[in-house]
Amino acid sequence: MEENFKALEFIDGCLRLIDQRKLPAEFIYKDCRTSGEVADAIKTMIVRGAPAIGGAAAYGVYLALLESEDNRELFKKLSADLRKARPTAVNLMWAVDRMMRKAEESGYDKEALLNEADTIVKEDREINHRISEIGISVIRRGDTILTHCNAGALATCGWGTALGVIKEAHFKGMGIQVYADETRPLLQGARLTAWELARAGIPTTLIPDSAAATLIKNGKIDAIILGADRITTDGDVANKVGTFPLSVIAKEYGVPFYSVAPTSTIDFSMKEGKDIPIEERNPDEVRKMGEIQLAPADIHVFNPSFDITPHQNITGIITEEGIIYPPFDKNIERIKKEKGL
Amino acid sequence: MEENFKALEFIDGCLRLIDQRKLPAEFIYKDCRTSGEVADAIKTMIVRGAPAIGGAAAYGVYLALLESEDNRELFKKLSADLRKARPTAVNLMWAVDRMMRKAEESGYDKEALLNEADTIVKEDREINHRISEIGISVIRRGDTILTHCNAGALATCGWGTALGVIKEAHFKGMGIQVYADETRPLLQGARLTAWELARAGIPTTLIPDSAAATLIKNGKIDAIILGADRITTDGDVANKVGTFPLSVIAKEYGVPFYSVAPTSTIDFSMKEGKDIPIEERNPDEVRKMGEIQLAPADIHVFNPSFDITPHQNITGIITEEGIIYPPFDKNIERIKKEKGL
Repeated sequence: MEENFKALEFIDGCLRLIDQRKLPAEFIYKDCRTSGEVADAIKTMIVRGAPAIGGAAAYGVYLALLESEDNRELFKKLSADLRKARPTAVNLMWAVDRMMRKAEESGYDKEALLNEADTIVKEDREINHRISEIGISVIRRGDTILTHCNAGALATCGWGTALGVIKEAHFKGMGIQVYADETRPLLQGARLTAWELARAGIPTTLIPDSAAATLIKNGKIDAIILGADRITTDGDVANKVGTFPLSVIAKEYGVPFYSVAPTSTIDFSMKEGKDIPIEERNPDEVRKMGEIQLAPADIHVFNPSFDITPHQNITGIITEEGIIYPPFDKNIERIKKEKGL
Repeated sequence: MEENFKALEFIDGCLRLIDQRKLPAEFIYKDCRTSGEVADAIKTMIVRGAPAIGGAAAYGVYLALLESEDNRELFKKLSADLRKARPTAVNLMWAVDRMMRKAEESGYDKEALLNEADTIVKEDREINHRISEIGISVIRRGDTILTHCNAGALATCGWGTALGVIKEAHFKGMGIQVYADETRPLLQGARLTAWELARAGIPTTLIPDSAAATLIKNGKIDAIILGADRITTDGDVANKVGTFPLSVIAKEYGVPFYSVAPTSTIDFSMKEGKDIPIEERNPDEVRKMGEIQLAPADIHVFNPSFDITPHQNITGIITEEGIIYPPFDKNIERIKKEKGL
């Protein structure tokens, strides 16, 4: 089972992205022909979702090599610009670093770099399918699942992480239904998740973020399943703002809470969630909607893109290497050793 | 200290409302000349906030008497329409019932009814000032306060409940600052509270509802102060959706949580929060913003206007009769007796 759309695709020397800011009202592409255009697309969230920005950045590094020709300093600078396009998701740094290693190993061979980017994308899709097969073990027939933001095909190089698990359960005939948080301020739940789940034919109900707690308290939610942008070695998870309060409510009312992510989302160099840099975005994301002024134009705004869910609130982290359960520090250490990191 | 605007005012036989759906972009009035227009204004939230809709409905009953002349059945029907314009806030029923009693007592005297509506509005303003004076005892110099939705001058017949307490502290020179939840879906925090606090010169930061939990966890919030739409005799509180999750986070991290309301918000006939009817509003409040389509047009939506905060999560209920602390049932029973109800 595959989606008939791709968040990113490399065609004719150009990275073609679905402009996710325009969905669901419009389905249009943004073609990036330079690494700078890729960095801008990541910054402005034309492409978003930790694994998807990793894939996009990989092609960005390839484009940087084409642009810089034999100028290694320029190549490094362009790649560094990509690496810092957004600060929280670790997959972005992971993908750029992997491409840089390949560049050195291959003697800055263009074909090798294009192949490496293709491989990153292909691996991400395969990993997502493996995650889905592993993840459906936490879902029971007829379950109602709550998700937040978008961790689907649009957030990855294909299929999705959290939504991959959910779609797998649906296509296996498990008769699930989903509540999707709209996910303010950029409404990835309303715009992307609702669109993606509806396309897959999954019964989906959209809710304001604030309504989730009532559903959880009233026993309407069997499991919370969502993505991750960075996971520390203690098992703390940075994910879209709104994830952490859900985890507190879920713990209070005994609802299982799962983060879903490839192991490339684990930052093996970072122990605790408090050290994850949290991106703060433009106040106008909160003050305006298109041209509509939602608040006084000069009101001060705090607009963090992510929050930190402490590992104490997490039931399990679903990865392609299996489901990581507590004690997270020991079990993540084991994965680190197995990977030879 | 008074505001230089009024959510509602009765002038020349006409109820003049600020159209709160249009703020802060536009400041325009809606003039209601019939009880049906008042009921519609309440339904469509031109006027909103439990005490304000109580005040508006009082004038609505007066207009109903003018319209129905000696037709008592019509008068009762028009009044009943007002009473059920919105189901959750008890002040609406309380105000209509009080006006109906006055109608019977006075032999359906028009002047008596107009006086009674004026008295309800005047009392509400006085009560709010008394609440403010009582309420500032929970605030310490330099505190940072989180509020949700709008419980200010716009939500009442003047001055406000939760925002009344906050403004009182500010004008007493206590050097407070405020974080205001934007309050999806109708954004009363962004549109009304941010506007009202900025006008009062109070340092205010607007946040997406989902960001509040991070602030609470990180010790940035000294107290949560917000309004109430109905309070049961056990002390459970119905208030704008998003209040309940805040109460869970506040309890988890030891931040005091105060509901502020006149005692007319207490439903002495209802014991537990689970029995409060929760209004579900139009799905397009979530799916659209003006003409902008935020989600697939046919996606199913759950859009409850309120949620229930269990009394176990509430530090105190600030009223004009004093601050009610646990055990709420005993202390609310005492108020009931004192009022001879």
